[in-house]
Amino acid sequence: MDFFSDEYYMKMALAEAEEALMQNEVPIGAVIVLNDKIIGRGHNLTQNLHDVSAHAEMQAITAAANFLGAKYLNDCTLYVTLEPCIMCAGAIAWAQMGKVVWAATDPKKGFSLTNYPILHPKTIVKKGVLAAESESILKKFFAQKRRNL
Amino acid sequence: MDFFSDEYYMKMALAEAEEALMQNEVPIGAVIVLNDKIIGRGHNLTQNLHDVSAHAEMQAITAAANFLGAKYLNDCTLYVTLEPCIMCAGAIAWAQMGKVVWAATDPKKGFSLTNYPILHPKTIVKKGVLAAESESILKKFFAQKRRNL
Repeated sequence: MDFFSDEYYMKMALAEAEEALMQNEVPIGAVIVLNDKIIGRGHNLTQNLHDVSAHAEMQAITAAANFLGAKYLNDCTLYVTLEPCIMCAGAIAWAQMGKVVWAATDPKKGFSLTNYPILHPKTIVKKGVLAAESESILKKFFAQKRRNL
Repeated sequence: MDFFSDEYYMKMALAEAEEALMQNEVPIGAVIVLNDKIIGRGHNLTQNLHDVSAHAEMQAITAAANFLGAKYLNDCTLYVTLEPCIMCAGAIAWAQMGKVVWAATDPKKGFSLTNYPILHPKTIVKKGVLAAESESILKKFFAQKRRNL
């Protein structure tokens, strides 16, 4: 795997998803990259924070914007291990994210279900990067949940 | 105006919008009510916080969930001075908000533009409560902005 490739940064997002898994959260992770540098990270924390908005992407966006002291992320790329939901897609649109790369698709809650152009028209989208790795972590989580029922 | 009416709580949301106005933010405010008590407040702070996700509704949802120590807000009502955007509608859906009341419609960024059932199917929606008051604050803000160009 090349450094600074989409696969490389998706691995970093998958490491964030592992962090969520260790905290008994649906394992989803995200990183935001600017000029080959990670400037924002996040993993799903909705259960632990009792906050529906504590998705990986939302936290990474807030972190990156804090780092830059600016709310627009036109030159940044967001890597996230699952297709963003409608809420996160809305935030990605507001941030005018330069590029979004996701791993697994989300057939139940993914924003593309709306068939509405939610993202900013200039945002580049790439799908399916390390999708199998992301699905494997998600499956591990839900299998574990079922065992504990 | 009756206490504990939708108009009463929308006035409280409008007071939050005035707070935003005083901070040179697009004046939008929100409150969340449970059993006739305000348990979350927020006003738009996207400029000051450099954070696209710092919408009034997002802050009110996080505040209410923190107050309750629970992320679902099924028995709560959200009052917001402008129709929620797609991001906020997504958050309202995740929170399974019991009822949403908004004042002015947002023909440019309102979530209803998507024609997709973003909100939870059980969420009750009421529109147009004190819409003129909300539009008046928004107009005041944009007129002021134009004068300062």
